[in-house]
Amino acid sequence: MPRRNAPFSIIRRLPIYLRILDNLIKKDVDIISSRTLSSRTGFTAEQIRKDLAYFGAFGTRGTGYNTVFLREKLLNIIGLDKENHTIVVGAGDLGTAFGRYNLIKNPYIGVVGLFDISDEVIGKSVEGLMVQHLDCMPEVIDKYNVKVAILTIPSSQAQTVVNKLVKSGVTAILNFAPTKLNVPDYVHVHNIDLTIELQSLFYFTVLEEEKDSV
Amino acid sequence: MPRRNAPFSIIRRLPIYLRILDNLIKKDVDIISSRTLSSRTGFTAEQIRKDLAYFGAFGTRGTGYNTVFLREKLLNIIGLDKENHTIVVGAGDLGTAFGRYNLIKNPYIGVVGLFDISDEVIGKSVEGLMVQHLDCMPEVIDKYNVKVAILTIPSSQAQTVVNKLVKSGVTAILNFAPTKLNVPDYVHVHNIDLTIELQSLFYFTVLEEEKDSV
Repeated sequence: MPRRNAPFSIIRRLPIYLRILDNLIKKDVDIISSRTLSSRTGFTAEQIRKDLAYFGAFGTRGTGYNTVFLREKLLNIIGLDKENHTIVVGAGDLGTAFGRYNLIKNPYIGVVGLFDISDEVIGKSVEGLMVQHLDCMPEVIDKYNVKVAILTIPSSQAQTVVNKLVKSGVTAILNFAPTKLNVPDYVHVHNIDLTIELQSLFYFTVLEEEKDSV
Repeated sequence: MPRRNAPFSIIRRLPIYLRILDNLIKKDVDIISSRTLSSRTGFTAEQIRKDLAYFGAFGTRGTGYNTVFLREKLLNIIGLDKENHTIVVGAGDLGTAFGRYNLIKNPYIGVVGLFDISDEVIGKSVEGLMVQHLDCMPEVIDKYNVKVAILTIPSSQAQTVVNKLVKSGVTAILNFAPTKLNVPDYVHVHNIDLTIELQSLFYFTVLEEEKDSV
């Protein structure tokens, strides 16, 4: 199975298929067609068939995909078919949101640590998990073999924390700090900049107003 | 200026340039080269020059861009050169994070409403803005001419709220609910699915482990 070097654009769609399969399996649905997957995702059926065919022949022409089989394959491809742990650094509103949501709802990834440096939040409990001081982070990373970390701290502190994460063995970072992080080549950083996402949406409202005034 | 139909990939980079310009102007820096912009963003200098040239000739060859001039142009292109308002629907951890961050730090977009249906959060103050009942939403949208809304509510309620937003005149939605929303063609929805972003990162950790074991 050519797992390596699959385009990230494909990889990012796989968890979307996974979520739909989870819901179908809960409802005892055995088979799903690419057309139904299309109507639930908004991607074309052709795109979906192509995405899945990239990793192997998982469906039957004219019938569709077996939900349980496809789910297992996807879990394996993404790397969620084992115990997966993550930590959240920064226990402000966003970090708490992330910790809480994943502790309750994400069946595949366990949040095993929430870290901060502020006395105001250290000791606070988020769904039973206590916020710890940043100094405790390397031990937790080591204990749970954490490879993925979520960063929700101010830009000014981000690089220092990232250096610690990398030193402790983290190889993938979901970064919400609006700053460019320097990491070794083998570390993957995925930046989500919520201000940028919000600001860029205003472009469309101006477009709509211009159309209205033509 | 060909504002219309600019690729969204370009549009999304403009606020990143904008943030850098803001910081430079605060430090009284007059001129910035595409090379410096490149080192601060991680995009190539060529990409940056191409992005900006799409909208006009803003720089001087061999010198660079005037920071104040370029900032004004970018604000105009994105549509942030006027009073801009947004609302947040869903005052849980994520909605609160979004409201608080933008109320404090986003100089271009004012959050004028935070809405929820839970008595537990209605009446709560976030940076001086009080969480109101969802029923108050249309009035606030109308009063402030809100065109952009942020949605941080559970999937089960998302479509109902979106229908209300569209009916009230909202034309762009930043959606965090992990579900596909149905909207008229003229409404732009930008989905951010934090679970998907997190899950897809695990792919890279497996890749790294495979490389290690070769």
